[in-house]
Amino acid sequence: MKGNSERPWKISASEASVKTVNKIRQIVDKLDLNKVPKDKPFISKERRSKKKKKIGHYYFVTIGDPTKFPNLKPSPEVTKAVRAALESTQCNGYAPSFGVDEARIALAKQYSYPHVKVDKSDVFLGSGCSDAINMAFGALLDSGDNVLLPRPGFSFYETVCGRYDFECRFYNCLPDKGWNIDTKQLETLIDGRTKAILINNPSNPCGSILTRKNLEDVLQVAKKHRIPIIADEIYDGMVFGEIPFIKKRQAFVLQFSFFIYFFFWICNEKIKKLKGQRGIGPNSLIQAALPTILAETPKSFYKQLNDTLRTQANLFHELFEKIPELKPIKAHGAMYMMVGIETKKMHLKDDVEFANLLLREEGVLVLPGSIFGIPNYFRVVTCPPPDAIKEVAKRMDSFCKRHSSQRGNKAKL
Amino acid sequence: MKGNSERPWKISASEASVKTVNKIRQIVDKLDLNKVPKDKPFISKERRSKKKKKIGHYYFVTIGDPTKFPNLKPSPEVTKAVRAALESTQCNGYAPSFGVDEARIALAKQYSYPHVKVDKSDVFLGSGCSDAINMAFGALLDSGDNVLLPRPGFSFYETVCGRYDFECRFYNCLPDKGWNIDTKQLETLIDGRTKAILINNPSNPCGSILTRKNLEDVLQVAKKHRIPIIADEIYDGMVFGEIPFIKKRQAFVLQFSFFIYFFFWICNEKIKKLKGQRGIGPNSLIQAALPTILAETPKSFYKQLNDTLRTQANLFHELFEKIPELKPIKAHGAMYMMVGIETKKMHLKDDVEFANLLLREEGVLVLPGSIFGIPNYFRVVTCPPPDAIKEVAKRMDSFCKRHSSQRGNKAKL
Repeated sequence: MKGNSERPWKISASEASVKTVNKIRQIVDKLDLNKVPKDKPFISKERRSKKKKKIGHYYFVTIGDPTKFPNLKPSPEVTKAVRAALESTQCNGYAPSFGVDEARIALAKQYSYPHVKVDKSDVFLGSGCSDAINMAFGALLDSGDNVLLPRPGFSFYETVCGRYDFECRFYNCLPDKGWNIDTKQLETLIDGRTKAILINNPSNPCGSILTRKNLEDVLQVAKKHRIPIIADEIYDGMVFGEIPFIKKRQAFVLQFSFFIYFFFWICNEKIKKLKGQRGIGPNSLIQAALPTILAETPKSFYKQLNDTLRTQANLFHELFEKIPELKPIKAHGAMYMMVGIETKKMHLKDDVEFANLLLREEGVLVLPGSIFGIPNYFRVVTCPPPDAIKEVAKRMDSFCKRHSSQRGNKAKL
Repeated sequence: MKGNSERPWKISASEASVKTVNKIRQIVDKLDLNKVPKDKPFISKERRSKKKKKIGHYYFVTIGDPTKFPNLKPSPEVTKAVRAALESTQCNGYAPSFGVDEARIALAKQYSYPHVKVDKSDVFLGSGCSDAINMAFGALLDSGDNVLLPRPGFSFYETVCGRYDFECRFYNCLPDKGWNIDTKQLETLIDGRTKAILINNPSNPCGSILTRKNLEDVLQVAKKHRIPIIADEIYDGMVFGEIPFIKKRQAFVLQFSFFIYFFFWICNEKIKKLKGQRGIGPNSLIQAALPTILAETPKSFYKQLNDTLRTQANLFHELFEKIPELKPIKAHGAMYMMVGIETKKMHLKDDVEFANLLLREEGVLVLPGSIFGIPNYFRVVTCPPPDAIKEVAKRMDSFCKRHSSQRGNKAKL
């Protein structure tokens, strides 16, 4: 028998944490970034620092983070408001777990409509959208309950469900109908343990916007079965296409008096029970700056942002349309576009092989559609500036040509 | 039969969210702040704004938030580092969910010892200590498992356990032994489903520090049963008494080669599985500023902070010792002190009645010990400046005298 001190330590991770999986990380972590060809680094552009020193700058077309791109800066009003909060040294303490009053009041005002008055007590601030999703799901679902999720959809919803043993059921968004929801198929998913329907509009990964008709059809189903809707409208202001963005609540008030609403905060007296679940809320400096940010960021900032995103999304679409092996679906909002891959026209198995080879051969990183539940698509981020988009499209064309089973050596771009 | 549109909506909160309870909020929410006597508001002091306008400033002796007190400002280096991160406009994007590399590297360096090398991959950043506790518990425990917690102890541990259906088992910290741990009683709590022992050192609510001997005894028990320790050492630097603060790891390396460590981040390869559980980590501006904050905040700042806290903690202790109905237990660290109530000497039922009447009659708010699992004590926060402490003590004395069953009209202060 071994002595006590030699007995090995066996500390296992909890089952719940093992079941908590982030699909994006699973796939991205397997990509070998060292295999990027040296003569073709990630689409990049030279930048110079203040001291005129060269700084290599890399554009990924895979990360939905506008700050990675030099053409999408925050508005100066945001920086100013945060600086004022910081320098006051009065805003760096513990905030109430729901959020500070001033921020909740400002948000309630911003999200009130003539027919739907939002009060500060309806507003809960989360530490980012992930935290808000966590709270909203946790407030409504117990282990074994199910939630209806979009397919294709943002994979973090599944990550949360894995953690808490919530069942994910997927409703289809139809590519040939601009990613509108197949409400008939959605309704077949509902049973006695369906506790919520999540709508993500504008959509990540599609950059699509639901039509008023489609949104109202979904609400009709929700009403019939008395199932609350969690509306993840985080890309609310990022709308630039010809389809008008109808907020769920705007559509809702046409017909219903009950609502449950969620942006990156959640409004509803009924789910206040979740409050105890919270420790401390989001960063108190940013909360303190929020009222000023909402009041003082000029409309021109948002207009310019959307103009930039429109130009870039349309350029991506236009260039990819010329590539015979690709079938881009036009984006109307958010920072994303989904592109179909005609695998039949190529010597490639699927979207994962497509993305892996594209990275290795061309230094371009896209996210395979499988991550979002829809194989043989890939997602691009529409944040890079036009020069980078043109370079991506050029490399994409030579890649597709090289692996085509139908084209000869004919480049399209 | 009613038409579809009249059928009522019944959306229930999830069972898990109903079981999620924050004891502090349960008790504090029941206090009627409107009942504070008008001639005796919360201990307060006049302050003037830049425009010389009077601003009433209230000192609570109940909130562990140093920013509520004008005598405890952040160091200018902190403000400077955050401002630099803000103005770069390069640090406001999505950070990796574990934390940004620079912050993890700086923390790994700060928490390495000659015998224990911490690597950046050992460091996970949480959005505040509550988030870190959530992660650490979630990584090790499944529903039905148990964790050993200090009594008296910070009530948020129980809040987290309620949410996930983890069982709390409480080990005793002994007031007459400076709140050191009763390791014999602790050992009796362990069974096959005990997945962690949480140590909070320095302690909230006690302001106590474990002796090296006591800490080593606990580690010996942990080693014998092969149970990892979660060391909540959030008040690490706030130590001002005669007892030296021994970090768990410092004690650990004397005897053990395995460790699991937790400050407001967690270090251990084995629990990396928790990573998928995370969406986005803590505020990216603050993460970006962290290396500079750690490197440039001068030691004199911490020394001065501890000098201030020592003066205030000792003043509280000295003044409360003169009140026959109170039995303060000296604080050596953190921002808290526990005070015993000799209920036998008073016409009062318990600590909750004590706190309620004290607020109503004297405008002084303390937290009843019941919140922390130890009745007939109350917690004060040692952050208020000396003037406020003297005023609190004076009111406390008249309150105790008024409700005393033994004193006549003899004020002690």
